[in-house]
Formats: sequence, structure tokens, C-alpha cells
Amino acid sequence: MPEIASSDAVGALRAYLRRIAALEQVAGLLSWDQEAMMPAKGAAQRAEQAGAMAATIHALSADPRMGEWIAALEGEALAPDAAADLRAARRRHRAATRLPEQLAEALARETAAAHEVWAAARAARDFAAFAPALERIVSLKREEAACLAEGEGADALYDALLDQFEPGATVAEVAPLLEGLRPRLSALRAAIAEKPAPAALSGLFPAAAQLDLARKVARRLGYDFEAGRIDLVVHPFCSGVGGDVRITTRTDEADPFNCLYSTIHEVGHALYAQGAPDPFLPNADYCSMGVHESQSRFWENQIGRSRPFAEWLFPAMREAFGNFGIDGPEALHAAANRVEIGFIRTEADEAHYNLHVLLRFELERELISGALPVAALEAEWNARFLHDFGREVPHAGLGVLQDVHWSAGLFGYFPTYALGNIYAACLDAAMARDLPGREAMIAQAETGPILAWLRERIHAKGALLSAPALIEAATGEAPSAAPLLDHLEAKFGALYGL
Amino acid sequence: MPEIASSDAVGALRAYLRRIAALEQVAGLLSWDQEAMMPAKGAAQRAEQAGAMAATIHALSADPRMGEWIAALEGEALAPDAAADLRAARRRHRAATRLPEQLAEALARETAAAHEVWAAARAARDFAAFAPALERIVSLKREEAACLAEGEGADALYDALLDQFEPGATVAEVAPLLEGLRPRLSALRAAIAEKPAPAALSGLFPAAAQLDLARKVARRLGYDFEAGRIDLVVHPFCSGVGGDVRITTRTDEADPFNCLYSTIHEVGHALYAQGAPDPFLPNADYCSMGVHESQSRFWENQIGRSRPFAEWLFPAMREAFGNFGIDGPEALHAAANRVEIGFIRTEADEAHYNLHVLLRFELERELISGALPVAALEAEWNARFLHDFGREVPHAGLGVLQDVHWSAGLFGYFPTYALGNIYAACLDAAMARDLPGREAMIAQAETGPILAWLRERIHAKGALLSAPALIEAATGEAPSAAPLLDHLEAKFGALYGL
Repeated sequence: MPEIASSDAVGALRAYLRRIAALEQVAGLLSWDQEAMMPAKGAAQRAEQAGAMAATIHALSADPRMGEWIAALEGEALAPDAAADLRAARRRHRAATRLPEQLAEALARETAAAHEVWAAARAARDFAAFAPALERIVSLKREEAACLAEGEGADALYDALLDQFEPGATVAEVAPLLEGLRPRLSALRAAIAEKPAPAALSGLFPAAAQLDLARKVARRLGYDFEAGRIDLVVHPFCSGVGGDVRITTRTDEADPFNCLYSTIHEVGHALYAQGAPDPFLPNADYCSMGVHESQSRFWENQIGRSRPFAEWLFPAMREAFGNFGIDGPEALHAAANRVEIGFIRTEADEAHYNLHVLLRFELERELISGALPVAALEAEWNARFLHDFGREVPHAGLGVLQDVHWSAGLFGYFPTYALGNIYAACLDAAMARDLPGREAMIAQAETGPILAWLRERIHAKGALLSAPALIEAATGEAPSAAPLLDHLEAKFGALYGL
Repeated sequence: MPEIASSDAVGALRAYLRRIAALEQVAGLLSWDQEAMMPAKGAAQRAEQAGAMAATIHALSADPRMGEWIAALEGEALAPDAAADLRAARRRHRAATRLPEQLAEALARETAAAHEVWAAARAARDFAAFAPALERIVSLKREEAACLAEGEGADALYDALLDQFEPGATVAEVAPLLEGLRPRLSALRAAIAEKPAPAALSGLFPAAAQLDLARKVARRLGYDFEAGRIDLVVHPFCSGVGGDVRITTRTDEADPFNCLYSTIHEVGHALYAQGAPDPFLPNADYCSMGVHESQSRFWENQIGRSRPFAEWLFPAMREAFGNFGIDGPEALHAAANRVEIGFIRTEADEAHYNLHVLLRFELERELISGALPVAALEAEWNARFLHDFGREVPHAGLGVLQDVHWSAGLFGYFPTYALGNIYAACLDAAMARDLPGREAMIAQAETGPILAWLRERIHAKGALLSAPALIEAATGEAPSAAPLLDHLEAKFGALYGL
């Protein structure tokens, strides 16, 4: 009776996946606590605690019983939710069993050690000081990718790494989408550079008032404080899923946009995580990192940096900060969208951001394929930056050393940022058709129907579909770069009189 | 080559114990977070996370390899630290393997369900509403004790439960020590009852000022804020070990002693935990719950409620609260030691506290031995309370239902409170001989040498010795009730003119 056998296997597999999800939530809480609460002298113990959690989760993921249940379900006709759980289980079991223990340990050791080396090299603006560590990491990541790779060809290794963040995605599919951004983005960038920048904010913005405003915005956008909390840290992030989704933020007393937009960004992640149908099953959690980023970027950019939102934000900021040198919503909107050709990705405006990502995506593919040696990375970075941004990189700290990702072994992660921007714009375009009164809602920060639209079409679907299929189901069209480019050209065209 | 074999087994066992300790620290952090940080809607998920951690720790503790290492080391001549780790491993492995899974699950289920039943019954002052749940718990605990019991005789079952909190302790050894307290405590209580009570504090005590004072006191007593933090919760506790030991406290604006003395109590636990030589090995962690409680009670009572400490505390409280109706250190010391015949253990003064514990110790032994049926518990409680305290219990909420312990299956825990008081007084008497200038130190809250004395004689010894052996090694005398009784008679004799 194969039907009974496979339903048994689904049940057994799910009990296991639930256990693993619970332990991963605990590991996530450890990270949150480390950033937000842990006393300084707890660090060494915390490393051992995190290591014990990782070893426990690895042992469960590699358990031969998991392999048996997966094998029992291969080829069975499963309901979409069970099929999605099977895909997640297969991916997890494969990663846990294919990597030799020695390789996993070497990666953990090298990336842990590389963090300090990278930070020191960045401070010293000295790529050569980081290059040996990066060489070892790239070599180990190529080994890892070779263990995981399913296909053949020049991008098979990179695909295996990309798949860890964007399940099912391949260079063949992602590269055209991302690289299609470059021509129009470059043209937009060049056109804006000819124009004078709008006025910036002025004054001092007390940290407490910024935090109050951030909480107010979070609440209005639908973040459920009964299922989360906001704390201050050095690097903002969102942690958790379901009934316990915590946001962190930071304040800069000279720049209230930092706290405000990082909070809205994390609220976007948090709304997705709070909307997960079941925090313990992969099919009912999030779809991919790209889709996760689409939620954060949608709320940050399509809502938070929109012209209508400035109608609500301007009086809210006046109440919080008094006079800050801006005379109304229109000027506030312009100030919140000031374009500056900077060197740092995390500080980039919407017009430049994806060019930063493209640079990294192309370079890391070549590092992983072996086409680009680490020794040549800095020169290559600087040459391509000059081409894409029209400026010379002054030093490695503002160039190739700026991001933490590669020192942590995170190859294949960068493209999910641009995918998120692309998906966010696709969703925005579809939503504009579905919700004709949307601008008025945003102008009053009454965004309930917007969240409901996302809950129904994205959050409720978990990981039932691949990311492109999910976006297509939500919008009626396969994802493409056009809505993002249209959005950016319209927005900056209006702001800069292009 | 048996020597190599056993040193291999020590290393393997210790690697395992370290892993388990790390996971138990994580489980402890989950509890701290649940009380101090977790949003309300996180509760259901947290239960599943805690369950996953408990199952993981249980599986490691029950692992047959642990049994093999233990067996390989039995009878070997081990260094004291390895012998202590072996004892801890044996106790853990035995508990994990002897309890049938069904029994462990029934206990977890019944105690989880009983919590709400107990809270409702206490609110309704209705013991009969709780009795059926308690009957099931007592019955399951008797089963558990039968699985774990090593010896024979009337107290073999209770001994097995007591051993979980006070390793190696038995009723035969503990009961005479504790019951020896009763005659002189009863006489002291009766003598005090004849006398008028000293003046109490008056006024309002702002919560923020109380918390500031609590932090100031914690810092002066040696609590390391780089290795801990203090937060507000409903029920104060101390959590963690080594470099991350967190305290919680609470404030009552009508009674600053609540926050102050609960903080000092938890600081006592925290100083012990921060002083653990190695937070990942049982031999280098704490000795027993009784010894842990000796540290909290020592700082709370022997230091915090002492006459010299009032010299430092009075100006500190004046600075924090202004005038609070007390004119100097002597009156403050009297107010901090007001004796009132109350019904509630957790609110009891030093003169009454141990009588509360004795009552529970005797009743729970009889519940576990089977001599006392649950149906007769309330009447028995009330009769013995009348005998020991000279007052009728008005209702079950102020009597048999007041403590959470039995509903949680915590039998064998109560005596560790009285052992802690006894040990604290033993240490205090020895320290008075060793540190002749101690009163002046306490009067200035310069207690470094006191902490150093405890660090050397108690904290640094971890679990190398049994609790009585540890106290004897630290003080030169086997633990006895005499120092505690002498301390109480001297203190209250002076305060009440007895």
C-alpha cells in the first residue's frame, strides 16, 4: 500500500523538519541575543553554544532516516505543501551529507578567522592583507560547490551556491534578468549626475525621538508588537518567524533617514515573517531570500520613499523633530531620494543600488568559476566600478573590502538583493492595478489593504512555489526588470526633471 | 593499557559533557528570554523550541556511548576533577536511561497542565480543585523515584528525588540537621511575638530609583556587569554561568526592600555563577542547590541585613529616596529585620523562614513515602502550621496552595533552601574568624575580601566535593545548625531586647 507508506513518510519527515525548525529558531534567538542583549564577556561561551546548536542541527539534517523518508517519497504524487517540504528536506539532507566533515570544519574555521583579518584590512585599506584569507575561502567554497553541484558547465559551481539562498535559481535564469538592468540604470545614473541635488535635511535629530518615530511607523505599517519587539544594535536586522519576529535598528543623530528607512526595511522582512502560515514547516515559511528582500524593499522604497508617504511622514517628522529645514512633503520626498554617487553599497540610493549588486554578482561568479584569481580582484573591481559609476575608487576600504559577505563565505547571496528589488517592483506594478485607491492609503499611512494584498499573494503561499512562479502567480506576469526600471525612471525623472 | 583507555574515556566523556552544558546554557537563555524579553505571541513557539532543546539534551544524556565511557571509568583511580565529572555523568545518564519515555512524557504533560489548575485553585482558595492533579503528580513522582532509587527503606524514594538537587544527600543526613532547627526557632519566634515591632519605612519609592540603587548595590558587591545584566520581570531569578550571568528583579513602589533584597539574593547566586572555573564542565560548575542557596542567602542576610551594612545603606537610600521616615542606620537595620508572623514563605523574615521550609520538607517526604495521602494534605498542613507558628491558616491560598513547587513536580527541592541558610551561617562564622576587619568592610560596602574568601573556598571548588565536605573544607567544621541558630538568636535578641 504505497499511499499509506508515503503518508507515513510525510508525517515522519515533517516531525523531523519541525524539530529542526524549532532548533534553528533557537539558534536565531542566540544570534539576536548576541547582538542585542549579551554582555561582552559572554562571547566565548556563546561561540561554544552556537557551535553546539549547529552540530545538533547538522546531525539531524544528516540523519540516515531523513534520507530514507526522502527516498520513500521520491516520485510519489504529493500535495503541493508536502512536495515543498520534500524539496526543502532534500536540499537540507543533501547539503548535510555531501559535505565532508573536514571541509565543513575548514570553512567554519577559515571564515571565523577571516572576519577579523577582513575588518583589519578594511581599516588599513589594504586588500593584500585580506587576499590570502580570501583565497583560502574561495578555494573551500569551490570545493563545497563541487560537492553540491547538480549540473555541468561553467556556472554549475556558482549555481550550487546560489541555490542555498534562492532555491532552484540558476545563473542562466538570473544573469539575464540582472544584467538587463545595466543599460538603463547607467543612462539614468549619468542623467541624474548632470542635475543639481535637492536640499537635504538639516538639524539634530535626538535618538529617542527617532526611535519613537520608528516604532510609530512600524505600528502603522502593520508590524505586530505582540509578536515582536524593536531594539537598538550596531547593524540592523530582522530575526525570527511567526509569533516572535524581532527587529533591530540604529540611530544617527545627524541623519534620521538612517533609522527610519532601516526600520521600514526590517518591518518589511518582519511582516513577511509574521505572516508565515506555519513557522515550523518549510512549505509554510518563506520562499527565498530574493522574495524576502522583495518584501523589505517594497515597504522601504515603493511605500516609504514614495511621494504619497511623504504626506504622512512630513507632519510626523515635524511632530518628532520640530523644524528640520524642509518646508513640506514634496521637499521631504526629494530629500529622502537624494542621489549621490557613493562608493558604499549599503548607503546607496535606489538609482545606484543595483549597479553595486551587479558588480559583485559578476565578480563573485568569476571567482567561483576560477576565471578571476583573487590576486586580480581589486584591480578588476576598480576598473568595473569606474566603468559603471564613472568614478575612481579611492581605496580598497571604499571598494573591494567594503562588504562582509565574502569574508563570511557568502557567495551567491548578493544577487538576491537585486532580485528583491526586481520582484518588489513587479508586485508594486500589479498592486497599483488591483488597488486603485492605493496612493490615498499611503498618504495616510493606512496601509492595511496593501499588507492584506501581500499576505494573500505572497505570505500565505510560503514556499509552495519557486520565486519566479510565486511572483508570476501574484502579478499575472513572469518577473522582469521592466517594472523596476520604469519605476526608477519615473521617480527620478520627476525628481530631477530628466 | 588501561590508563590510556581511561584517559580516552575521560576526554570523550568531557567533550560530551561540554556539548550538553552548552545546550543547557542555551535552554537557560530561552527561559530568561521568555520571562524578560519574549513578546506574548511567542509563547506557543517557545514551548516547541524548549521541547526540542529538552529532547536534544535527553538524547545526548541517554546516548549509549555515554554509558560505555562511564563503564570504562568505573573503579579507575581518577583525579578529583575527573571523578566529579564522572559522578555528574553517571547521575545524568542514569536519569535519562532509567525513566521510561512514557513516564517522562506523562510527567511533562501533567505538570504543564497542573500549573494553570494550581493557579486557579490558589486564586479560588480551593485545595480540592487542585488535589486530583496533585495526586497524579505525586503518583508519577513516586514512579520516577522508584526508577532512580538506589537504596532501600522508607526514605529511599524521597532520597532519589532529593539527589537531583542535592547530589549525594539523604534524608538520614539532612533531616536531623533541619529538624534540629525547630526547638530553638520556635522559642525565638514565640519570644519575638511578645515584643513590639520596630518602625517600618514610610513613603513612596519610585521604581527607577529602586532599580538604580539595586544596580549600585550589585556593582559594589562585586557583580560583574561585563558578564551579566539586570532586567525587570515578575519573579526574580538568576540565570546563566561563567561570562553570561543575568539577574532579574522587580520593584514595588511601596516597599523598596523587595527590590533591594531580591537583587542582593540574586547577586549572591550570580557571584557564585560568575566565579565558576569552567562553565562547561560539571566538576567546575556549582556543587549543589543547597550550596547555591548558601551564596544567595549569605549576601542577602549575613551581609545585606547586617547591622554594619545599614551604615552604608542608610545614606545610599537617603540619596535615592529622600526622607523615608527612618532616622539612621540603626533604625534602618531594625526596619529591614522586622519580624511578622506571616503565612507566606517567600515573604518570611529570617526568624520564620526555616520553619516554613521544615513544614514542607516533612509533608513532602510523607507524600512521597505514601504515608500521607493527598486528600489529607490540607488538614495536615493547617494542623502543623498552627503548631509551629501559633496561628490558624485562614485559607488554602495562604496555606497549602501558596507555593508553585509541587504543581511543577519539584519534590526534594524545599530542603535545599534551609540547607542554604545553614551553610551560609557556617561560612559566616568561619569568615568572621578569618577576616577580623570584616564589619568595617561591610559598613563601607567594600566587600572585595569577602568575595575573595568565597571565591577561594567555595566558587573555585566547583563540584569537586559533596556539599557537606565542601562546607567542612571551607570552615574547618562539619556543617551544623548551631551557627545559624546562634546568628538568629544574637541578631533578633539584640533587635527585640530578648
